[in-house]
Amino acid sequence: MANSSDGARKYSRNHAERFRHELLEFLRIPSLSGDPAHTGDVKRTAEWLAANLHALGVDDAKVMPTAGHPVVYGSWTGAGPEKPTVLVYGHYDVVPAVIEDGWDSPPFEPVEKDGKIYARGATDDKGQLFIHVKALESYLEANGGAPVNVKFLIEGEEEISSPNLAPFIQKHQNLLRADVCVISDSSMRTLEDPAITHSLRGMTYLQLEVEGPRDDLHSGFWGGAAHNPALALVEILSKLYNADNTIAVPGFYDDVVPLTAQEREMVAKNALSEKQFQEATGVPAVWGDKNYTIRERVSARPTLDINGLWSGYSGPGPKTIIPAKAGAKLSSRLVANQDPDKIYHLLKKHIESITPATVKVKVSLVTKGKPALIPFDLPEMQAAARAYEKGWGHKPVFSRGGGSIPIVADIYDLMKIPVVMMGYGLDSDGLHAANEHYSIEMFHRGIETAIVYLEELAAMGAKRSDSSGARAA
Amino acid sequence: MANSSDGARKYSRNHAERFRHELLEFLRIPSLSGDPAHTGDVKRTAEWLAANLHALGVDDAKVMPTAGHPVVYGSWTGAGPEKPTVLVYGHYDVVPAVIEDGWDSPPFEPVEKDGKIYARGATDDKGQLFIHVKALESYLEANGGAPVNVKFLIEGEEEISSPNLAPFIQKHQNLLRADVCVISDSSMRTLEDPAITHSLRGMTYLQLEVEGPRDDLHSGFWGGAAHNPALALVEILSKLYNADNTIAVPGFYDDVVPLTAQEREMVAKNALSEKQFQEATGVPAVWGDKNYTIRERVSARPTLDINGLWSGYSGPGPKTIIPAKAGAKLSSRLVANQDPDKIYHLLKKHIESITPATVKVKVSLVTKGKPALIPFDLPEMQAAARAYEKGWGHKPVFSRGGGSIPIVADIYDLMKIPVVMMGYGLDSDGLHAANEHYSIEMFHRGIETAIVYLEELAAMGAKRSDSSGARAA
Repeated sequence: MANSSDGARKYSRNHAERFRHELLEFLRIPSLSGDPAHTGDVKRTAEWLAANLHALGVDDAKVMPTAGHPVVYGSWTGAGPEKPTVLVYGHYDVVPAVIEDGWDSPPFEPVEKDGKIYARGATDDKGQLFIHVKALESYLEANGGAPVNVKFLIEGEEEISSPNLAPFIQKHQNLLRADVCVISDSSMRTLEDPAITHSLRGMTYLQLEVEGPRDDLHSGFWGGAAHNPALALVEILSKLYNADNTIAVPGFYDDVVPLTAQEREMVAKNALSEKQFQEATGVPAVWGDKNYTIRERVSARPTLDINGLWSGYSGPGPKTIIPAKAGAKLSSRLVANQDPDKIYHLLKKHIESITPATVKVKVSLVTKGKPALIPFDLPEMQAAARAYEKGWGHKPVFSRGGGSIPIVADIYDLMKIPVVMMGYGLDSDGLHAANEHYSIEMFHRGIETAIVYLEELAAMGAKRSDSSGARAA
Repeated sequence: MANSSDGARKYSRNHAERFRHELLEFLRIPSLSGDPAHTGDVKRTAEWLAANLHALGVDDAKVMPTAGHPVVYGSWTGAGPEKPTVLVYGHYDVVPAVIEDGWDSPPFEPVEKDGKIYARGATDDKGQLFIHVKALESYLEANGGAPVNVKFLIEGEEEISSPNLAPFIQKHQNLLRADVCVISDSSMRTLEDPAITHSLRGMTYLQLEVEGPRDDLHSGFWGGAAHNPALALVEILSKLYNADNTIAVPGFYDDVVPLTAQEREMVAKNALSEKQFQEATGVPAVWGDKNYTIRERVSARPTLDINGLWSGYSGPGPKTIIPAKAGAKLSSRLVANQDPDKIYHLLKKHIESITPATVKVKVSLVTKGKPALIPFDLPEMQAAARAYEKGWGHKPVFSRGGGSIPIVADIYDLMKIPVVMMGYGLDSDGLHAANEHYSIEMFHRGIETAIVYLEELAAMGAKRSDSSGARAA
């Protein structure tokens, strides 16, 4: 068993060109989930993927309906019930792209150039999810079987916020039962910096509207005795922060799991210097809570950002009004174990409590998502680290992601299994932009790493019992 | 002399219908100063007015060029050099109007209905300026002469901010020389509330832009270590005010002429209750500096209002960005003797001094205008009060206007003569709106009051010497 991945890896190298050829076919179908005109294409893409899985030996591969675009499901359970089962999550849908956006070639006519595949969806997420499909194929063809059981849950609505994924998981708990979930839908800084994301921030996004006079007022006739709603908004927002840049909302930090010394050491491996931050963003100087390093601030600490502000007149020249209204979009990135609903209520209550009687305030929830924190010392995580070490020749870092991928927390919460984010993208891949591309070397290294990961999961020893997954929470 | 106005007033009553007929003709010409397509109409209006003045005995009435639309000038100096000279300022241009804006009848086809004349310019300012033309005519026809000399300075660019008026006044100092200037281009609350505006607020209007990152940033990847420009703006703006709603900019109040007990008593005659303020504006509660009454706050005290705010995303749903920029429009209504340039520099300096190194700030001047304060105990003001008393049957109040009419300060500064604002409009006339109208009763009462005012100016005694006008400053 120790060397069982060797054959599969060799197979994957020998069939590299065909694997890419298949990926190009996959990329050719414009699976735009947000555009009703492409509903047929989305379905065709699901069917193509189910057929590809079926052909390599996933006999039950099928297109399963949801209230929206379908899910592609399939399982290979030939390793037997005593072996662990890995659930591969990915998404086959893409965001819009037209050549007029600045593409050098049509976004749905993939081309290979300078070691990269150019096409919409190349890195996000068709290329990355296909790695796991071809890893399983390599095992089945080379060895006649894989060291663990593999299930696929590939959705078609990730780019429109996965509205039907949680209900699908809840409905098909038995079908999807697994010991670990692996997701490849993220990126590393360079091809030499493999990283496993073990936490993501959650989110509470709200909107705040201050109302004063019935209509805009002439600032000459009324100015001095009407509380300007834009000023009231400014006063409210300024009171949400302390002078040391921490958040002044009572209870906001109460549930935050403190960073341990070990975790801070881990985060430090991915350090971000003041100079790097400035160069990457163009800010004149770094800001934030000085009790934490820059990398900690952007990944392991909660935030409160103003995403939008509006009031009155913003055109050229003067307009001498007291605006009737002023508004702001405000979002908080949350860390474990902050609860998005609780944070929303704390924010709302505090905002209402500091709003003076001279104006009215309306606070409403826009969207929310839970944070996720998967302990990096779990065996499934350590197995992933060993897989990268073989695929890359050196150890990956465990990193905390500052962004939010609500499905990670959804899977973690609903299935009670560890979620391992093995990103095989590059920060420079241009996802969601013109000329999205995917490194061919990354694609092949990814397949080999995925092959090794299955072996490492098998070597990890005892299968996680159905209920013991809860220990990861 | 004591009864010399009686004949003129009688004449004006006997010719009321013809006066209105002439006003309707005046209103028929669409003198839109802001629309190049109407340049010919603007000129035709000036020529019509000059001809009307000429016909009644203003022999030198003429259309005088400026760099923009022309000025109508004319003088009747038959009272002789030992008598005072009054300069009537007004404007014959109007703002745009089309029936599609909601007019019940075409805006340049005046109609008389329910005691009102409906037409664009009816109250602003053709109807009001024409009062002084017909007052002079009444004297000349009834008595063969007026008790004082009268000059007319009627411009055609007031609605586009009078860009060429100050240069015109400077160039024609001798031609325009007078002892007092009267302007009828404002309004009273009801027909029974005559008021003389003796002060106006000035203005410093500026724009403020805060810049942080080079582009909008993903709030997940960078949030926590980038100073959000919208937050930085909010922090800066909130620091411009004290907790008691006064303005926290050092030196801001230094030059404010304090209200005397006598002035506060005068302002109190025009009191505005909390309830009245709330009903008029719809605000939940009155706001401001509690050391001053509501009427004082909106007219006799300087302000700082946010006229506009913008940053990031304001559309529906969430967008999780740290905006690259945030901006605000900010304007200060000034009172005597605040200098708009000095206030601009105080604001700019203070804003720059409180801006942290984590963002950049840009402050720029948008527009400015000087405040005007004409002492209400000047004989020319008291003469106006007596004129209203005869025209209306009761004393007018002297009121401070909260708005800004920069030409008042221009005339006051350039000519060193008192400017008396005898507004013959009503707050409800709908100026600049659809169905602008003018009360026929107001028009005729105005003519009689203007007639009496000339007599009162003559009775005032010694003519103001050319240089002594400076005492009003």
